[in-house]
Amino acid sequence: MDYQHILQSIQQDLQPLAQVGHQADYIPALAAVNPDQWGICINTLDGTEHALGDSDVPFSLQSITKVFALAMSLSLEGDDLWLRMGKEPSGTAFNSLIQLELEHGKPRNPFINAGAIVMADILVERLNNPEQAFINFVRQLSGSPNIDYNFEVARSEHSVAYLNTAIANLLKYHSNIHGDIDRVLRFYFMMCSIEMSCRQLAHAFLAFANHRDPFDHAGFSLTSSQVKRMNAIMQTCGFYDEAGEFSYLVGLPGKSGVGGGIAAVFPGRYSVAVWSPRLNSKGNSVMGMKALELLTTHTRQSIF
Amino acid sequence: MDYQHILQSIQQDLQPLAQVGHQADYIPALAAVNPDQWGICINTLDGTEHALGDSDVPFSLQSITKVFALAMSLSLEGDDLWLRMGKEPSGTAFNSLIQLELEHGKPRNPFINAGAIVMADILVERLNNPEQAFINFVRQLSGSPNIDYNFEVARSEHSVAYLNTAIANLLKYHSNIHGDIDRVLRFYFMMCSIEMSCRQLAHAFLAFANHRDPFDHAGFSLTSSQVKRMNAIMQTCGFYDEAGEFSYLVGLPGKSGVGGGIAAVFPGRYSVAVWSPRLNSKGNSVMGMKALELLTTHTRQSIF
Amino acid sequence: MDYQHILQSIQQDLQPLAQVGHQADYIPALAAVNPDQWGICINTLDGTEHALGDSDVPFSLQSITKVFALAMSLSLEGDDLWLRMGKEPSGTAFNSLIQLELEHGKPRNPFINAGAIVMADILVERLNNPEQAFINFVRQLSGSPNIDYNFEVARSEHSVAYLNTAIANLLKYHSNIHGDIDRVLRFYFMMCSIEMSCRQLAHAFLAFANHRDPFDHAGFSLTSSQVKRMNAIMQTCGFYDEAGEFSYLVGLPGKSGVGGGIAAVFPGRYSVAVWSPRLNSKGNSVMGMKALELLTTHTRQSIF
Amino acid sequence: MDYQHILQSIQQDLQPLAQVGHQADYIPALAAVNPDQWGICINTLDGTEHALGDSDVPFSLQSITKVFALAMSLSLEGDDLWLRMGKEPSGTAFNSLIQLELEHGKPRNPFINAGAIVMADILVERLNNPEQAFINFVRQLSGSPNIDYNFEVARSEHSVAYLNTAIANLLKYHSNIHGDIDRVLRFYFMMCSIEMSCRQLAHAFLAFANHRDPFDHAGFSLTSSQVKRMNAIMQTCGFYDEAGEFSYLVGLPGKSGVGGGIAAVFPGRYSVAVWSPRLNSKGNSVMGMKALELLTTHTRQSIF
Repeated sequence: MDYQHILQSIQQDLQPLAQVGHQADYIPALAAVNPDQWGICINTLDGTEHALGDSDVPFSLQSITKVFALAMSLSLEGDDLWLRMGKEPSGTAFNSLIQLELEHGKPRNPFINAGAIVMADILVERLNNPEQAFINFVRQLSGSPNIDYNFEVARSEHSVAYLNTAIANLLKYHSNIHGDIDRVLRFYFMMCSIEMSCRQLAHAFLAFANHRDPFDHAGFSLTSSQVKRMNAIMQTCGFYDEAGEFSYLVGLPGKSGVGGGIAAVFPGRYSVAVWSPRLNSKGNSVMGMKALELLTTHTRQSIF
Repeated sequence: MDYQHILQSIQQDLQPLAQVGHQADYIPALAAVNPDQWGICINTLDGTEHALGDSDVPFSLQSITKVFALAMSLSLEGDDLWLRMGKEPSGTAFNSLIQLELEHGKPRNPFINAGAIVMADILVERLNNPEQAFINFVRQLSGSPNIDYNFEVARSEHSVAYLNTAIANLLKYHSNIHGDIDRVLRFYFMMCSIEMSCRQLAHAFLAFANHRDPFDHAGFSLTSSQVKRMNAIMQTCGFYDEAGEFSYLVGLPGKSGVGGGIAAVFPGRYSVAVWSPRLNSKGNSVMGMKALELLTTHTRQSIF
Repeated sequence: MDYQHILQSIQQDLQPLAQVGHQADYIPALAAVNPDQWGICINTLDGTEHALGDSDVPFSLQSITKVFALAMSLSLEGDDLWLRMGKEPSGTAFNSLIQLELEHGKPRNPFINAGAIVMADILVERLNNPEQAFINFVRQLSGSPNIDYNFEVARSEHSVAYLNTAIANLLKYHSNIHGDIDRVLRFYFMMCSIEMSCRQLAHAFLAFANHRDPFDHAGFSLTSSQVKRMNAIMQTCGFYDEAGEFSYLVGLPGKSGVGGGIAAVFPGRYSVAVWSPRLNSKGNSVMGMKALELLTTHTRQSIF
Repeated sequence: MDYQHILQSIQQDLQPLAQVGHQADYIPALAAVNPDQWGICINTLDGTEHALGDSDVPFSLQSITKVFALAMSLSLEGDDLWLRMGKEPSGTAFNSLIQLELEHGKPRNPFINAGAIVMADILVERLNNPEQAFINFVRQLSGSPNIDYNFEVARSEHSVAYLNTAIANLLKYHSNIHGDIDRVLRFYFMMCSIEMSCRQLAHAFLAFANHRDPFDHAGFSLTSSQVKRMNAIMQTCGFYDEAGEFSYLVGLPGKSGVGGGIAAVFPGRYSVAVWSPRLNSKGNSVMGMKALELLTTHTRQSIF
């Protein structure tokens, strides 16, 4: 498979979409990003790496970090994690309070905000220094010791986080947050603020495509079955209320973020990270979605 | 892979679940089925077939037939199909009117009742003799010319179909049914009433696992990409509000029915059909779900 | 109180609203009504009658007839009626299926369509000839033996009644309709089709303002307490999701219909009927609402 | 009307209910109240006062204070108040986030928590010292200069106010809170913490029954029409999702609180306050509801 050639072909096909969509602008740091960037990187289990475009420019991972939080939480809690959240697609917008109230404070899945806030609570409760442990884990996964939080982004998000604060209080009301709300949210926004390039992100996700080698990073280990099941959750819940659309068009498990990044895996073959800041109305990167659709079309390979 | 040995091992592991759950009893014909039956059959793309238990006893397919309806509708309408229904998981019970009202009569996906009723409307509108065309298609797919509707089941379901009649009227109110409501529902219940054995069903689903040979049956053809995308919809929407759970535990695209059957595919490898009438609270077969979980665990193979 | 003078003053104040709003047009018979009509009539307990405008032109009562259905149902069932429906405001549009599904087929109150359909079921079950009994009751109440159904309107509504048929099927699914759905709906639409003039309607509602004389009409009797409680329900539930607005602006118990009529009572003093076909976005008569607001403002009298 | 005799008769009839229901216990101060108390007081516009039972024992007003907040807000904002909240019954539990999210942060009415929090925001924004202004207004209305906040109750409620904090954050997200969330909530809980006896509360509510004398207290004035319209809102929205039931059984505008108090008015005749801590499942005082039902039954007088 000539991935480099395929990436170039994708880049050409994406041109008509270059100006489509709007980047996130609810905080200054995201609004300030140059929207005319795009990058992609594929890492294969055979050890090859193929990159194109702005694949070394770091961007804000945002919700993509929920995958790392899930790996750590699942490692710590095992199946007890599912006592505090479900693993069903939400069928509604990612920050909906309605479902959370109807279902008595049990988030639908780990990838909606409510679920990720509960995972933040778990990590704050279980780890001595959750911020340190989290960044260590991410650095090891990606093989890049210089990856870091963006404190300004974290602080900025926290200061306008009315909806997430509403969610956290509703969770606390239903006893599904054990710790202090402010502490949990501070950690939650720290997680979201991590910045990586496509190259680093593809490297980090390779571990989820790899079922031969044991998953054991910075003290957090998962069985091969647990890694596969994380992929299953990415497949059904990774794209807010567009999970079905992504599954239909792309056919790979993945996770998107409001910073314009998407990471996905082809189990047993490769991981891929793509980034472009302009988003569609569902909050997913326009060029990112299309690039991955073209990837599975051109390679004639999807998990289905 | 020694499938026959694996099936025997699964059968043993299932014993503790033999009495768990309750069969559907909302119509006499389903209530009369002996609940202490179970069968399984695997068909591989290599041409082998492995069966165990009551794998030649025909049972009522019910919602599994929605997969056949989708194949035919997609063949007739192409992507225009998605103007009349979505492809997102519903996140609520399979017969919910709430979502349908909030979303102005556009069903979430083809596998909830509302979506299947719209497909029934399409088939009634587009085909001269929809009942004949549907059974022809199913017979060709399964290679069994003796498969047939159960008229008593169809009539019996139609006579107590208050909820589906409510759904059909709400669809009509939103102009998403073109034909006569009674005609459409009569066809809908005919589809649901088809009976097959596990052996026949596994054979019929092999076409969805097979991306080498063209999909072209009884005049209805799909591209390889369309077949893959149907699998994606099975993955995200095939199990009512337990799609995430099935995806997590089993990791295969599939579709269940209230008659206790489940059909699933491992793209590029095999199709599998399992049947046992006792259902869990979500309406999915208890032993069927477990059998497929054990299958992907024992074979150490899932799409993830 | 010089009611005739007040009515003339109201008529003048209404002029700017003469072209505001749109008449109901979902069936030909309603669409064909001349929208530039308006009439009003007040009947006092002192025996005086004051009318203005097109107060002798019959119009389609539609939902106003639910008050008569409630009087008859309450007379037949007593407080057992409340086992089958509530008496709380719905807080949502009058024909919402959502609430009905969430509340397991128990309508919020008698004045939403679902509640009225249950009352239709009660009258069909309890009365030998419900159509005859209903029109007799209404004729006696209004003192006009020539009042009648409009069969064309009833038939026409029934033929496009997808939403009400959905509601009736959902009620039946929850066992809250005992009889045959078509029979119940046929009677329901007959009730709605009754035509009266403002003069006749004001006369008919005088019985609800009158707590001195016993309520006993055509064999249906209510205690004084029951009549008062019917007024309470009109106050909280009589105007779909605009009940609060009407209560705030007008301060009288009343009931509106999609034909543009409104009937209201000032307990102990008078009844009033007003009619004008143009409706606001909530389905209530624009000039009718305003006329009643002006009436309680000019008379400086409301129940509050 | 021999009110004293009627009160004694009511007291007797209430005996069977003496142990029914459970007092609020979500904060220590409310849980510590002796539940076996009940008091009632009627103040007539003729200047008479009739009291029975523990009518001089102060209790926590809680939501009853929303009536005072509405009077002040309406005096300050006039009809602009309705740009920020509705006046329709909510049809759901008093603290529901669902409706608030669906309706984009505009509370249904002033008497659900969301509406009262918006009023708290208005008073904090418009008044130099809202705590002082509020207690002055309440003292003048009731004619009791010694009425005061209970700081311990306010602090205690604030410390467990997860649901109200969620509501306030959702309001802020929709720009329907202008001030600082903590400041607004601090004032909100101060308002709720006011304590009065039945005698003081009946006195305070007499102003809402009195349409002859101008409403002008501590600098806050309302027109007669505004006072009547406040009564209309009490009628349709004063009892959470039991407004219809109260209206049906009692037939007076009123407002209840979780402390077990209810205040109501018969416009033009009297005000009444009743208190008993044990609540029904809707959060309204069991004996209080029944006492008022008996009052309008025995006096044969309701607004309907």
